[in-house]
Amino acid sequence: MADKALKIARAGNGRRPVLLAIAGDSAAGKTTLTEGLVKALGQDRCVSICVDDYHRYDREERKELPFTALHPDCNYIDIMEQHLQLLATGQPILKPAYDHATGKLARPQLVAPNDFVIVEGLLPLYTKLSRACFDVTVYLNPPEVVRRNWKIQRDMGKRGYSEEQVNAELERREPESEEFIRPQAKYADIVVRFSPIAGRDDPPDTPLSAELMLRPTIQHPDLNGVLVPTLHQAVHLKLERDSDGRPVDTLHVHGYAPPEESQTVEKAIWSLLGEPGDAPKSLGQLGPDKRSEPLAITQLLLLYHLLDNHQ
Amino acid sequence: MADKALKIARAGNGRRPVLLAIAGDSAAGKTTLTEGLVKALGQDRCVSICVDDYHRYDREERKELPFTALHPDCNYIDIMEQHLQLLATGQPILKPAYDHATGKLARPQLVAPNDFVIVEGLLPLYTKLSRACFDVTVYLNPPEVVRRNWKIQRDMGKRGYSEEQVNAELERREPESEEFIRPQAKYADIVVRFSPIAGRDDPPDTPLSAELMLRPTIQHPDLNGVLVPTLHQAVHLKLERDSDGRPVDTLHVHGYAPPEESQTVEKAIWSLLGEPGDAPKSLGQLGPDKRSEPLAITQLLLLYHLLDNHQ
Repeated sequence: MADKALKIARAGNGRRPVLLAIAGDSAAGKTTLTEGLVKALGQDRCVSICVDDYHRYDREERKELPFTALHPDCNYIDIMEQHLQLLATGQPILKPAYDHATGKLARPQLVAPNDFVIVEGLLPLYTKLSRACFDVTVYLNPPEVVRRNWKIQRDMGKRGYSEEQVNAELERREPESEEFIRPQAKYADIVVRFSPIAGRDDPPDTPLSAELMLRPTIQHPDLNGVLVPTLHQAVHLKLERDSDGRPVDTLHVHGYAPPEESQTVEKAIWSLLGEPGDAPKSLGQLGPDKRSEPLAITQLLLLYHLLDNHQ
Repeated sequence: MADKALKIARAGNGRRPVLLAIAGDSAAGKTTLTEGLVKALGQDRCVSICVDDYHRYDREERKELPFTALHPDCNYIDIMEQHLQLLATGQPILKPAYDHATGKLARPQLVAPNDFVIVEGLLPLYTKLSRACFDVTVYLNPPEVVRRNWKIQRDMGKRGYSEEQVNAELERREPESEEFIRPQAKYADIVVRFSPIAGRDDPPDTPLSAELMLRPTIQHPDLNGVLVPTLHQAVHLKLERDSDGRPVDTLHVHGYAPPEESQTVEKAIWSLLGEPGDAPKSLGQLGPDKRSEPLAITQLLLLYHLLDNHQ
């Protein structure tokens, strides 16, 4: 029971780093979510790693293989587990590095954990032992149509693929997404779904709304001061059951709400954190001058959990 | 006291791999010694790693730095310690890789420990915690003139340097050899010195003799059956003091002895091991058709310790 031993070891020492997992399929928004958190906490307190760096084969080698990069067998899962345990117990790692631009495995990088470690990627919640390393776990679950759009935009823009190539790759990966990636959602303390709201006719630049499934597997902040009738357009909470029938609260954060109302919600959550000053400007950023209040509110909730576990 | 905890953990489980360290300066003969042992045990039972792969900087980056690759600060010593601990407790590692041909840091390699792990390199005995990972430790200590010749031959032949470049590099490295490499000799259970014997006028193709300082820090084999007067020309033992004044036995193995006599010694040591058949042909090999009986006898002694620790 290595995972049990690890949980006990971690519980016994409050000064060990707080680990947050952000799992999700390719182009589900993991990096955007992570970057805002790292900037908000500062690089002197927070480091992020991507566990897709644990790819066992480079792009050329994968061409000969009967599976895609999503398959656990295509990754050094045992070494990922080992490195997560090391980080969780405050030790440095020499992390492998996969270069998305060239598709090659490059020289490894030293990662020394500080107060907070954010671990994003395709498979951080795949094994029991890897899950035991985290204080908080998130799964990003946008509707497929949204994720496909994001993937096409990114892979055409930053990685030099054609739209056809991206679509073919999505098809090829679908069986492994279903088998290995999406099942991780059930282990997440928080499942986040950025999505337009069905049936509404919002203008095209309306930010996506967010649904945050808050599982009672961790202690969520007391949002009573936030969920007041005057802010109902921006956020509200619904008691529901998840797809396994387990009780969950779902926080609905509306992209169409007036920004001032959403920002009042953000201030209220920020004040719960007991941190000085205003909420960091990096929260909610989608680009140099593009903001999303639902993203900011999501990041604030994660920030709450990071700081709460650190205290 | 991480090293103490590790020693206790290792002592408690006899099925964990046996770790042998072979430390020494550049071109001291580490790889030649190691290769014969790996071949003798078989790659299914024995894996070897070189801890020079833990270089922190590539050749290009080192040009800007005030130290050479020999300096501990030029290496991920803490990660080397961590990986040695993992191997010593039977866990796999993703080992960094330094490419001597290009001088670049390359993609890391998975190393799964099996029965025996041989760890060679410049600094495997540099820290207390790294030393605690080993069952047997060896330091290779040829006279500087011998080592310089070996280094010139190898670096000109395999690594494309000129003799001038090799000599300049040796000069540049000398202060760090003195400060960091040679002091490791005092932590070795066995210090091996391949050298011609002063004052003798042997033909030029006479194999080098070997002096093996056998420290009482480990239990050496009972050589009474080997050290008989009829084999005195091949091997004999002297009770001496090392440079720190500590008592040691020194086994003198003579390169000028008739090969038949040395081979009788080898058979006698092999029979001590309780292994079936004859001693493996890989022992004593210096090249495709070049043999050294003193090398074979040295390797047999190390083989004895590896197998003895495994039982």
